[in-house]
Amino acid sequence: MQLGMVGLGRMGANLVRRLMRGGHECVVYDVDAAAIDALAAEGAVPAHSLAELVERLEGPRNVWVMVPAGYVGGTVDQLAELLAADDTIIDGGNSYYRDDIARSAQLAERGIHYVDCGTSGGVWGLDRGYCLMIGGDDDAVARLDPIWRTIAPGDGADAGVEPTPGRTPGGTAQEGYLHCGPSGAGHFVKMVHNGIEYGMMAAVAEGLSIIKNADVGLRTHAVDAETTPLRNPEFYQYEIDVAEVAEVWRRGSVVGSWLVDLTAAALAADPDLDAFGGRVSDSGEGRWTVLAAVEEGVPANVIQASLNARFSSRDLNDYQDKVQSAMRSQFGGHHETAAEASHETPATDAVDETRRATQEPAGG
Amino acid sequence: MQLGMVGLGRMGANLVRRLMRGGHECVVYDVDAAAIDALAAEGAVPAHSLAELVERLEGPRNVWVMVPAGYVGGTVDQLAELLAADDTIIDGGNSYYRDDIARSAQLAERGIHYVDCGTSGGVWGLDRGYCLMIGGDDDAVARLDPIWRTIAPGDGADAGVEPTPGRTPGGTAQEGYLHCGPSGAGHFVKMVHNGIEYGMMAAVAEGLSIIKNADVGLRTHAVDAETTPLRNPEFYQYEIDVAEVAEVWRRGSVVGSWLVDLTAAALAADPDLDAFGGRVSDSGEGRWTVLAAVEEGVPANVIQASLNARFSSRDLNDYQDKVQSAMRSQFGGHHETAAEASHETPATDAVDETRRATQEPAGG
Amino acid sequence: MQLGMVGLGRMGANLVRRLMRGGHECVVYDVDAAAIDALAAEGAVPAHSLAELVERLEGPRNVWVMVPAGYVGGTVDQLAELLAADDTIIDGGNSYYRDDIARSAQLAERGIHYVDCGTSGGVWGLDRGYCLMIGGDDDAVARLDPIWRTIAPGDGADAGVEPTPGRTPGGTAQEGYLHCGPSGAGHFVKMVHNGIEYGMMAAVAEGLSIIKNADVGLRTHAVDAETTPLRNPEFYQYEIDVAEVAEVWRRGSVVGSWLVDLTAAALAADPDLDAFGGRVSDSGEGRWTVLAAVEEGVPANVIQASLNARFSSRDLNDYQDKVQSAMRSQFGGHHETAAEASHETPATDAVDETRRATQEPAGG
Amino acid sequence: MQLGMVGLGRMGANLVRRLMRGGHECVVYDVDAAAIDALAAEGAVPAHSLAELVERLEGPRNVWVMVPAGYVGGTVDQLAELLAADDTIIDGGNSYYRDDIARSAQLAERGIHYVDCGTSGGVWGLDRGYCLMIGGDDDAVARLDPIWRTIAPGDGADAGVEPTPGRTPGGTAQEGYLHCGPSGAGHFVKMVHNGIEYGMMAAVAEGLSIIKNADVGLRTHAVDAETTPLRNPEFYQYEIDVAEVAEVWRRGSVVGSWLVDLTAAALAADPDLDAFGGRVSDSGEGRWTVLAAVEEGVPANVIQASLNARFSSRDLNDYQDKVQSAMRSQFGGHHETAAEASHETPATDAVDETRRATQEPAGG
Repeated sequence: MQLGMVGLGRMGANLVRRLMRGGHECVVYDVDAAAIDALAAEGAVPAHSLAELVERLEGPRNVWVMVPAGYVGGTVDQLAELLAADDTIIDGGNSYYRDDIARSAQLAERGIHYVDCGTSGGVWGLDRGYCLMIGGDDDAVARLDPIWRTIAPGDGADAGVEPTPGRTPGGTAQEGYLHCGPSGAGHFVKMVHNGIEYGMMAAVAEGLSIIKNADVGLRTHAVDAETTPLRNPEFYQYEIDVAEVAEVWRRGSVVGSWLVDLTAAALAADPDLDAFGGRVSDSGEGRWTVLAAVEEGVPANVIQASLNARFSSRDLNDYQDKVQSAMRSQFGGHHETAAEASHETPATDAVDETRRATQEPAGG
Repeated sequence: MQLGMVGLGRMGANLVRRLMRGGHECVVYDVDAAAIDALAAEGAVPAHSLAELVERLEGPRNVWVMVPAGYVGGTVDQLAELLAADDTIIDGGNSYYRDDIARSAQLAERGIHYVDCGTSGGVWGLDRGYCLMIGGDDDAVARLDPIWRTIAPGDGADAGVEPTPGRTPGGTAQEGYLHCGPSGAGHFVKMVHNGIEYGMMAAVAEGLSIIKNADVGLRTHAVDAETTPLRNPEFYQYEIDVAEVAEVWRRGSVVGSWLVDLTAAALAADPDLDAFGGRVSDSGEGRWTVLAAVEEGVPANVIQASLNARFSSRDLNDYQDKVQSAMRSQFGGHHETAAEASHETPATDAVDETRRATQEPAGG
Repeated sequence: MQLGMVGLGRMGANLVRRLMRGGHECVVYDVDAAAIDALAAEGAVPAHSLAELVERLEGPRNVWVMVPAGYVGGTVDQLAELLAADDTIIDGGNSYYRDDIARSAQLAERGIHYVDCGTSGGVWGLDRGYCLMIGGDDDAVARLDPIWRTIAPGDGADAGVEPTPGRTPGGTAQEGYLHCGPSGAGHFVKMVHNGIEYGMMAAVAEGLSIIKNADVGLRTHAVDAETTPLRNPEFYQYEIDVAEVAEVWRRGSVVGSWLVDLTAAALAADPDLDAFGGRVSDSGEGRWTVLAAVEEGVPANVIQASLNARFSSRDLNDYQDKVQSAMRSQFGGHHETAAEASHETPATDAVDETRRATQEPAGG
Repeated sequence: MQLGMVGLGRMGANLVRRLMRGGHECVVYDVDAAAIDALAAEGAVPAHSLAELVERLEGPRNVWVMVPAGYVGGTVDQLAELLAADDTIIDGGNSYYRDDIARSAQLAERGIHYVDCGTSGGVWGLDRGYCLMIGGDDDAVARLDPIWRTIAPGDGADAGVEPTPGRTPGGTAQEGYLHCGPSGAGHFVKMVHNGIEYGMMAAVAEGLSIIKNADVGLRTHAVDAETTPLRNPEFYQYEIDVAEVAEVWRRGSVVGSWLVDLTAAALAADPDLDAFGGRVSDSGEGRWTVLAAVEEGVPANVIQASLNARFSSRDLNDYQDKVQSAMRSQFGGHHETAAEASHETPATDAVDETRRATQEPAGG
């Protein structure tokens, strides 16, 4: 089948490669001519403008847009001017599903189909295949079946994925792609997928931190009148190799998952994670998932907490922490102290009003 | 190698089977004679008392205890009376790691080794192998290496687990078992493993609920003066097949995991989950993980929220909800209403003080 | 000063009463003629239609709209047809601040001022005064100063509120009303106020539940192979009078607050809260506060958790709980049991994979 | 009545002052002689050793211990040696209630009473009175009634606290002190009180942060291919005076509370909170409250989240954030970037796998 690809970044380029391996013909365009040349060298048909890309495709055309979120709207608008009725635009990025609803309605006026496709797999997708969550009208989605089938991982015989016990075989989900519903449904499912990913990542990270700090009873704590010592240091004497724990969980455990695989790889390469500052970005998907949960009335403490953890990792909690320090200063004359500022004593309980008030040691 | 197994429930029996497949000799005991007979028929050496089990083992003996948590202490005490110096007891259940520390110290007085082994894998472990997290003294753990190696999944060539990129090959973690540290370290790591499992499960469950409720804009909402209608019902018009979503995520997605595999299986068997009431038990591990986080000073909002979600699933939030209803009744004369009681209107925003106060419709 | 009041529910009527006590002239309208008559009997000028209300006011007119959120838009539209340039509409309800921005822009085209006023105080405001958070253009807000001053509590000499130490006297905040900013700012601040209220209420409710359950060690627990008993029942032997605790906290404690006052009143009237089912409504404000936090990137775990607690109080967690039960059923053959279903055993830790697998009691 | 006070820090000294104002005779001791002299100058009877303090009291003696938590045990042990049967020790600090249970049992062997008394009020208590939560045997607590009555705020006529509507007058709670139950009950209730305080403080702090950041739409955002711009900057254009908001909430609002009073005072003194670094200490009480909630099976997301916020304020989240950064680096080649590191762009949504993969701008 023939497909135009607009945007040849890492994911766009790998999608093209996977499609060409599957025997499809790809016409490719990017603002960066070098990216076009590279794929042309691998067999793709180069186009040096959107217009040329459209020209080189036979109708009904299929154009996959794989550009940064901020550029999707403009790209789609330009394509709409060049395409004809019954052509199809696929947005394979991480657009907000509400934009899909608007865009598909606009394009429908010209008879152009619009398909939203949440694409998961990252840099590993070229070999592993990409999980596809698709939204749009039935005709357009059905027509593209050969494309989905090639990009998706397939039924997993070679990927080590066994059939789901008890499931009636059939449908495309077992091949790794799914038509989820009308416009926006693909990006909606991908959005929530990313929300779950946030929660899983945070669960793993919290757990590994609890294991990492299992040695807290071994650390020297400042002894002063303001701190409550760890009551049972004898229970926190473990120095556990976190990297090896991640590795062992890869096999046979209940938490076995691709995210644990990645964690093991990261820890194998950098056991102390020195390369990382710990400022965790959040993409729109996590925020949008929380907004959807709130509007639907679904209690989603875990996903929300994982989003907030990313905010805090970037110090967006600073103001509210200052407010709390200021309150404490008022009600007990507590001032932030060296003890409070020390990073070395996570387990020491710090002062509260009574203790502080009696900080002059007394009575033996 | 020779091993005694005390406790032939599903997990104990499957461990015996896996060990026998691997060429080990197992002496087996259970309070239920039928369980002994069943395994004897498969080749195990039957013992009809702890004393007989100990007798049938050559020293230094290895006895694996796989009994409910409430029975571990008593069983270990009885075994201690029967065993000799240099023998080893393995606790393969989900004991609290603090009990391991106490028990190993007691047994050390008699020269008996005590090894704690967190065992993950559930009913699937017989074929897939069990992930083993081990604590105890070096000698005892090393001596049992043939046992660990047989029970664990192995390096995964046949399980579809690829080597971790960048990891220097070697060690046992890549075989699926790990000596984590001294007494209690195995159960500590297993405890946290289960805490992570709680978080992952809750993340998946929340996400699927957000997808399930993507149709909230389609539902009829009670129209009354007390409720704020969903502002944008047009964005919540999706009726998405949750079972198929779980299935598609099994292949190539970032959330791919054994828990998603299980979810897909559960939904394939019972798409509306009618068989389940939704009362989610919590085992000690989840609670203990939170206690450890608190004592270590590790912020663990996700794991804590997932534990609390289990509490709420069993209605343990009832009292505090009544307190809130009572407060609301005080400050605005809000009474719980049919609208509030309705389960059909998750997205309707309910009354607050102002609205309630003006519930008599007014002004056109 | 002269003011028209549209909407004579509990709050609208009490605002009128407070204004009349302060010497203002109120023209009143409601769709319920009896409500009009009642206030007319107390000295208000009755109007039997919006048109009549407008007629009876001298320009520039001030019309306060105090109707349920769902009716604000329609009421404002009708008023806009009747009013003239330089007249002012005040929305005293709990509208979404984004609607204020839109409405004020629309009305500005006709030269009509639009003021949004978040009004806190509930049924107690008639005597205590209402806290007012105001948004809108400077002229309109300034012109209404006599109205704000009468409705607000005043500087608190008689309300027992002492001046804030260190604050330079002046401004209106010390009188209990504040011009927060341009259109929407009043409702924005009121929205967040309600979000904080959610968090405070949940904190009190959680705490009282912890006190209520301090007797958990006294309760009989089912003894079975699947449950971990409470490790230290001796620490949970308290039967504490929750109502008296709320009462004592009213005086001199750090948590002293109006919400604790209300809690004490509710518990005094109904110590076991038998009148309440515990289905806690949520108004738009709580949801909107969370949406704002997410869009601003502010980590707000406490307010979010309190909103989610309200969702769960209304069983909106049911589906996700079923998903978790279904997963557990898959990985260990766990079925929901009577023990899990029992409400009487909050502290019993329930089965997990290992225990369940070995539920046949074993080994003495 | 006669009382010995051990520990003359701010709170111990103020308790003595309040007791002397009420006509009681106080014998005072501290390791710091200057503290003794200061109070002697105000009329207290000085003692220069515990032995002297005990000598100067007539039996049955009452000795109030008000020393830092770490010193309570030693002080009580020394006093036990000096006191006689039927004497009473009062621990007025923030001891863990489990220690009370142990200490009271030990002292009971000598016939000495032990009373635990949670004392709230901070530096304000001298004038306002202290809220007292008391545990211990009936006789000892009853005998001390004149002491409690003097220290507590009283029924509030002069403190502006009105009687709880509907409450049957009587009991001591309305005077601001309460015998909560046997040993430990006082500190248990005080512990939970502090847990609630954590939750309330965090709710206020989060809310004020949402108000502070209501100007996020006004800030310049970095424009790059990796960030999703704030979708609706027009809704976040408010520059709101946070100090004035706290002030206005003091009067007539639902969130009116002593904590809001303190917040207003703090913001009046330092509107930008420049004096604070935002490292918020946590005392034992917050942690213990969470432990109790977990052991009782009470879902307490709000209190737990507020405790975790304090952990994160002291950077105890660093390791888990690094784990998350490391995972992201693995699955999409995401590296932490200047954009991610920027503190100026809280509302910019950062890159995820797709966007990153296509960071070379493409397609117009």
